[in-house]
Amino acid sequence: MAELPLPPGSVIGVLGGGQLGRMLALAAARLGFDVAILEPEPDSPAARVAAHAIVGAYDDPAALAELAKLASVVTYEFENVPAAAVARLAEMGVDVAPGPLALAVAQDRFEEKTFLNANQAPTVAFAPADTAAEAEAAVARIGAPALMKTRREGYDGKGQRWVEHAADAGRVFAELGGVPVIVEAPAEFVRELSVIAARGRDGATAVYPLAENHHENGILRRSLAPAFASPALADQAERIAARVLKGLDYVGVIGIELFELKDGRLLVNEIAPRVHNTGHWTQDGCEVDQFEQHIRAVAGWPLGPTAPAARVEMLNLLGEEIEGWRKLAAEPETRIHLYGKREAKPGRKMGHVNKVKPLR
Amino acid sequence: MAELPLPPGSVIGVLGGGQLGRMLALAAARLGFDVAILEPEPDSPAARVAAHAIVGAYDDPAALAELAKLASVVTYEFENVPAAAVARLAEMGVDVAPGPLALAVAQDRFEEKTFLNANQAPTVAFAPADTAAEAEAAVARIGAPALMKTRREGYDGKGQRWVEHAADAGRVFAELGGVPVIVEAPAEFVRELSVIAARGRDGATAVYPLAENHHENGILRRSLAPAFASPALADQAERIAARVLKGLDYVGVIGIELFELKDGRLLVNEIAPRVHNTGHWTQDGCEVDQFEQHIRAVAGWPLGPTAPAARVEMLNLLGEEIEGWRKLAAEPETRIHLYGKREAKPGRKMGHVNKVKPLR
Repeated sequence: MAELPLPPGSVIGVLGGGQLGRMLALAAARLGFDVAILEPEPDSPAARVAAHAIVGAYDDPAALAELAKLASVVTYEFENVPAAAVARLAEMGVDVAPGPLALAVAQDRFEEKTFLNANQAPTVAFAPADTAAEAEAAVARIGAPALMKTRREGYDGKGQRWVEHAADAGRVFAELGGVPVIVEAPAEFVRELSVIAARGRDGATAVYPLAENHHENGILRRSLAPAFASPALADQAERIAARVLKGLDYVGVIGIELFELKDGRLLVNEIAPRVHNTGHWTQDGCEVDQFEQHIRAVAGWPLGPTAPAARVEMLNLLGEEIEGWRKLAAEPETRIHLYGKREAKPGRKMGHVNKVKPLR
Repeated sequence: MAELPLPPGSVIGVLGGGQLGRMLALAAARLGFDVAILEPEPDSPAARVAAHAIVGAYDDPAALAELAKLASVVTYEFENVPAAAVARLAEMGVDVAPGPLALAVAQDRFEEKTFLNANQAPTVAFAPADTAAEAEAAVARIGAPALMKTRREGYDGKGQRWVEHAADAGRVFAELGGVPVIVEAPAEFVRELSVIAARGRDGATAVYPLAENHHENGILRRSLAPAFASPALADQAERIAARVLKGLDYVGVIGIELFELKDGRLLVNEIAPRVHNTGHWTQDGCEVDQFEQHIRAVAGWPLGPTAPAARVEMLNLLGEEIEGWRKLAAEPETRIHLYGKREAKPGRKMGHVNKVKPLR
């Protein structure tokens, strides 16, 4: 296993070569680490800022062996890393952080909500279903309208549909591919919030201030942070984060999406065992951003401070919106973060900006 | 010539693969650019965070042709870039910024001081000498003790010696290699300061607050910024920066080292046509640091804000001092920047830290 804390000059491996991998690589470089990216696509955004780029499938044994040879520690930018890949790396003596439990929980919406509830992190009511008949029964139990989601895969609003009436459950189940699903009660939330938190290898935790998030068509559009929140609300979020981190024996940064209910209670919508789009504001709002924090955690370094230094409005640049860079570059308060993606497909996350304002 | 402002996705070339090239590459990546590094040594700090790495001499025609094919704009991390390389790139239609005048002036201490005086940027008294006899005459004219420096090369205190008595001038001239020199009167300064400034392709300028600098054995040890300075002093520095930038028809970030005299006047010690060690504090003290500012300027983007957001003490980590990373990583106020250099030779700049404090 790697010598911890990991000395500068060591190689940190990252599974995934998108924008999160890219920003992790940039943060790792600042701390004197080299980075090795494993990603199926050549010329990926992260590979172009990394010392080593391995092009291969995440479960390709040769690619994993190459990564294991280079890297002392491996992390990832997305939660759908094959469990077999992590097991394979572990066999070769490479520590993967966050660990297999976090991945297993995050890869299955039913496991996720079950884990959350077992750890006093409240969620909406839910029920699993593996067949059309079970789906109907689940909707009947939860009550319509309900949200039906595939247990696995699915992100940015994909792999989920509303069931307006219990009688529609079988049809929706089929439309989702006839795969195992979870049926969820709708959350009657007043706001979507998120908390970005980190846990070090020593069990120490650090929690960033809450972000208030606005989605469009299932895709994050805008985050405001620190969100205006009562001390009680912030405290509730911190307690949820602490329970989740401890329950997963977690190492790294986690993104926890929350619903704020009318009565002030928070429910957990979902967790992402990685740096998170709603944490991009920390790049220009905190001294240590979520990317450096994640690298610190997986490298066994002490966590950095999470206090806000500014108020930030984060806006995602989707698809052709990246063409607005000329105008954005001229705004004094706007910090620009672009991902180097070659093609601006509709809805694709091409970059983001942080509009920086004084804290108060 | 390149389309300006340079669109994200373009390649920016950097001559030099050291820490300044590395931090320029990281800043360029944040803005969505790819970077091509040309550097004689393989496995350089900058190459390990760049999309393209060309290993070759700076004046190697094949290497320059490869760089010209990739890059829309080329910049550099050090002022001793061969003039022929810049000319060659220009012939191939590649714009080099800062331009040839800045390089010519910065490469020759006599040209530099002549330029400065011609542009109302005051310096100590100085005289050139090409022979031992001229050196004696120069010291006699300037008065001993005087500082004798080679006109070309020399950095971090190298290529310079004190002449205690006029009679020693011939010997010191020989010790410096018998090459053309400049003899300078000593500056009776109370403080060493520096100003980091930038000029865009549209002629707009932006000036960072003054830094107060402390050297040891000719190497920068520590910068404090914003330096405590009267508005009159800051104004004087800004006027000097404006004259230098305009006089050089400059594009990019420049480092201007200053002596503060007892009577409150500022003299220019030297100029560096590049990002500068005394500007590293901007990484954690300003919203747009000197590296992004330089990339913005050479890419033809609007300049960013230069107002300070924090007070910073920048400390260089020289040689074995990098071994202090464990302790430094645990200090909440300390931001760490390491360069990924493989070998910690004595006096070698291995990294720096910015200790961040509230502005007031």
